[in-house]
Amino acid sequence: MPTFKITVAYDGTDFVGWQRQANGVSIQGLLEGALADLDQRPVGVTGAGRTDAGVHALGQVAGFSLARRIEAEAVVRALNARLPPDVRVLSAAEAPPAFHARFGARAKTYRYRIWNADVISPFERRYAWHVVGPLDVASMDAAARLLEGRHDFAAFRAAGGTTRTTTRTMAASRLERRDRLIVYEITGDGFLRYMVRAIVGTLVEIGCGRRPVAWMGEVLASRDRARAGPTASPEGLFLVRVDYDANATGSGLRLKVDVPAMSREP
Amino acid sequence: MPTFKITVAYDGTDFVGWQRQANGVSIQGLLEGALADLDQRPVGVTGAGRTDAGVHALGQVAGFSLARRIEAEAVVRALNARLPPDVRVLSAAEAPPAFHARFGARAKTYRYRIWNADVISPFERRYAWHVVGPLDVASMDAAARLLEGRHDFAAFRAAGGTTRTTTRTMAASRLERRDRLIVYEITGDGFLRYMVRAIVGTLVEIGCGRRPVAWMGEVLASRDRARAGPTASPEGLFLVRVDYDANATGSGLRLKVDVPAMSREP
Repeated sequence: MPTFKITVAYDGTDFVGWQRQANGVSIQGLLEGALADLDQRPVGVTGAGRTDAGVHALGQVAGFSLARRIEAEAVVRALNARLPPDVRVLSAAEAPPAFHARFGARAKTYRYRIWNADVISPFERRYAWHVVGPLDVASMDAAARLLEGRHDFAAFRAAGGTTRTTTRTMAASRLERRDRLIVYEITGDGFLRYMVRAIVGTLVEIGCGRRPVAWMGEVLASRDRARAGPTASPEGLFLVRVDYDANATGSGLRLKVDVPAMSREP
Repeated sequence: MPTFKITVAYDGTDFVGWQRQANGVSIQGLLEGALADLDQRPVGVTGAGRTDAGVHALGQVAGFSLARRIEAEAVVRALNARLPPDVRVLSAAEAPPAFHARFGARAKTYRYRIWNADVISPFERRYAWHVVGPLDVASMDAAARLLEGRHDFAAFRAAGGTTRTTTRTMAASRLERRDRLIVYEITGDGFLRYMVRAIVGTLVEIGCGRRPVAWMGEVLASRDRARAGPTASPEGLFLVRVDYDANATGSGLRLKVDVPAMSREP
């Protein structure tokens, strides 16, 4: 009964999110359907992060066990043959039976893309939040860096969130401008639901000058969701990468995460 | 009765092409509908190039005349407010009454994107042709350069094409690899229908080793469409830019073509 760890990229535009739901198509549901077809029995799939509706992934990680013996490369081919083109399995590797995609994850990296110009490119409309008007990127980056380290992120949790512990450690929280695109990237040991989008909404309040940089610290210290900025829209958010300890993957080898370069400036 | 020249970007995935047709939604039809609403009378729109179904544009140029007096900037805003998000007017400028987007065009540049890897990124599936297996880019580029200069391109015209003259001059025809992406770009004074896609299909025959570089010259000299490679799929093709003589645009000024950087590697 081999256990596999796979890396998955998806365009989240047309899905209800990672998690299986009664209504609508989910990435988890598609993978479980494809694996049930492959293994001729129901297969449960666990994902590292539950991306919400409209959120994308460059390198989501998932785990499952199969009854049949099959090579990892054949798993990639068999899944991609059964999945729609907006979901692609990038790689697969055998993992120890105890591998758990969610609990074993040591760090996750999210990226949020803002298109900051009067007119949004038609090629960016599914992959960036369109914010018109000048944004002070230096202030936004200064505010973003205030989140690095160990903090209680209760101010950025989903309204009505019931997570017991809201303290997380962020290894990096940085923002930069690349022409009309503003890119925020955050790496941490765990994220509350809507946390990245609430942070981005707060950063934009600072970037457009409605609030000073120090306001980020006040919001964080308040632990009050009502103090933070609005939740940024889902289309700008990407789950970039999930990191595991070396011994979490099979044979002590790190999985090669073959994330496609998303270059659209050819 | 001011005449305007506009630059338009569109994601061609969901359209029947530039040109108005009885069945399906066209870019020309959308623009004419939006302008009729703005000008309260039927408005005809002429495009520089008739992109086919599924083909994209970063900088298509179109022209039209309005009955009402209106600032160029207001034209941009009014059109974008009436167009779907996959079609965006990037800029507008007043042009001389004699301006003709198609006949006045001095040069056009097309780009064709090939995704050359086992698995295509979900974010590239609408914007690149997926070709699996090794491609010899040096040979493809050598063959592409054989098309530079003045030639009869009858071998690359649409089957059943009725264009009387098939001789065109290509200022540049180059190809390069950027990681998993192969980008072909061609600039010329005019293009036959399906010409770029037939050239790309021929280049891929050479790239995968089925034909030598010199075959491109033989195909070109044959003037026979049956000799060339298959027509590459539309999703990889972009109309990048249309150039006019300086006096074709209003006040002797060149229109600022504000093409969005399509960077997706942030």
